[in-house]
Amino acid sequence: MRTSQTGTGDNLDSPTESRVDANPWLEVAGRQLRSRLIVGIEHYDSADVAGQVLNAAGADVIIVTTDTDNERPSLLLTDLERTVRLEDFAWIGTTSFARSRTAVIRTAHVLKESMGISILKLDVRGTTNVPDNEATLEFARELRRSGLELLPFIQPDIGTARELEDIGCAALRLMASPVGSGRGIDDPQRLREIISALGIPVIIEGGLGRASHVVQALELGAAAALVNTAISHAGDKLSMATAMRHAAVAGRLSFNSDPYPTIA
Amino acid sequence: MRTSQTGTGDNLDSPTESRVDANPWLEVAGRQLRSRLIVGIEHYDSADVAGQVLNAAGADVIIVTTDTDNERPSLLLTDLERTVRLEDFAWIGTTSFARSRTAVIRTAHVLKESMGISILKLDVRGTTNVPDNEATLEFARELRRSGLELLPFIQPDIGTARELEDIGCAALRLMASPVGSGRGIDDPQRLREIISALGIPVIIEGGLGRASHVVQALELGAAAALVNTAISHAGDKLSMATAMRHAAVAGRLSFNSDPYPTIA
Repeated sequence: MRTSQTGTGDNLDSPTESRVDANPWLEVAGRQLRSRLIVGIEHYDSADVAGQVLNAAGADVIIVTTDTDNERPSLLLTDLERTVRLEDFAWIGTTSFARSRTAVIRTAHVLKESMGISILKLDVRGTTNVPDNEATLEFARELRRSGLELLPFIQPDIGTARELEDIGCAALRLMASPVGSGRGIDDPQRLREIISALGIPVIIEGGLGRASHVVQALELGAAAALVNTAISHAGDKLSMATAMRHAAVAGRLSFNSDPYPTIA
Repeated sequence: MRTSQTGTGDNLDSPTESRVDANPWLEVAGRQLRSRLIVGIEHYDSADVAGQVLNAAGADVIIVTTDTDNERPSLLLTDLERTVRLEDFAWIGTTSFARSRTAVIRTAHVLKESMGISILKLDVRGTTNVPDNEATLEFARELRRSGLELLPFIQPDIGTARELEDIGCAALRLMASPVGSGRGIDDPQRLREIISALGIPVIIEGGLGRASHVVQALELGAAAALVNTAISHAGDKLSMATAMRHAAVAGRLSFNSDPYPTIA
């Protein structure tokens, strides 16, 4: 019998259960990430709802964005502070609004210089809204040279994944299926293979539309799962955020439980 | 926005979270079932481990068996009492060891007469270990005449399901995939259709080998999921039982959250 890294779950009954793990799954830029669930908050126009979602989800990351090209409103951290304890969260910047090389680089520097954010959730998507692996790798090299810690988002490809690990990315985000599709994990076996081949933590993201998808992601060995639309577009957002919190705990415990082999 | 039947999850942080639902999903023979996870304990030779598993799983049902034909050992309730508060559980008998009509009927009567158990988890399996729908229906009619409350296990078939509802079964158990296979839900769409067509609660069971399978079962609309091998054959049984408890909560909340439609 293998010893579970998370024990028997005795400490999982507290409100912060999803943050309780023996060790953080990622230590980067002085922050420790423990929650296995990362929640995007770019879709919310209410900072109060976004804060309640973060709390219900047991998240310990706030994804901060700035739209340097357009007048798209961003949630203000000063508003978010009404519902969450900002100091309990790692702030991670995102380039998900940027649609050009210039916009990505400018967004990264604005986040760094104005807010001190040195961890970047790097998103370089083409016109089809799926990650552009080649451009991501190119931008990642440039941003690494300026000292940023990176969590790039790519389509699952072992070659790109290895190169991103080699240039020192802190973690990798692998696409399960197109963002917003909600259809789950298109190719579980491929994700499992990439996760096994890498030495850095992998986040599964994109198309995780149901709590069962989040559990499956963690059962494949992902260190964490990232959801956004699944919660922001649910009728009852707080109920779904709570569902996702339990899903992340379930998935991690299941992965750690030395499950018996299934018969295909 | 639809109001969630389970609220925002504020009451889900207590150790008994999985029992906390506004209403029980089944009221039968004076018992109320709230936990969405039912755990088989026939595989355990240690009553202490079985009790710890029941507690970690947040279960509120104890499945009691007696093997009238063989010398197969049963867990003794007097031993189980060392780790669980027996009065907090509904006792449901099972005929899963019985392999003949005579054995099924005899088991039912022994459980009723010796232990006062009037709720029966009816299992009539053929030599291939999958439910025999025709024989199940026949036995169900006979056992209903003697006043037993029944939870029969069948292969997913709408005709059989409707007949079992018509003769007054309390709930129905639909096979996801063969017992012990762990391969998950073979035909989710078929299960969803049967669940929608029935007025009685449906339990999904058989082959639920991962926490993600349990979540999926509840997302399809099942009132509860039943697992056994997934926990009893895991390296770390208590960790997996805890995973399954969170999975059941996640699945029910997800189902109740009015999820957004996925794109196939």
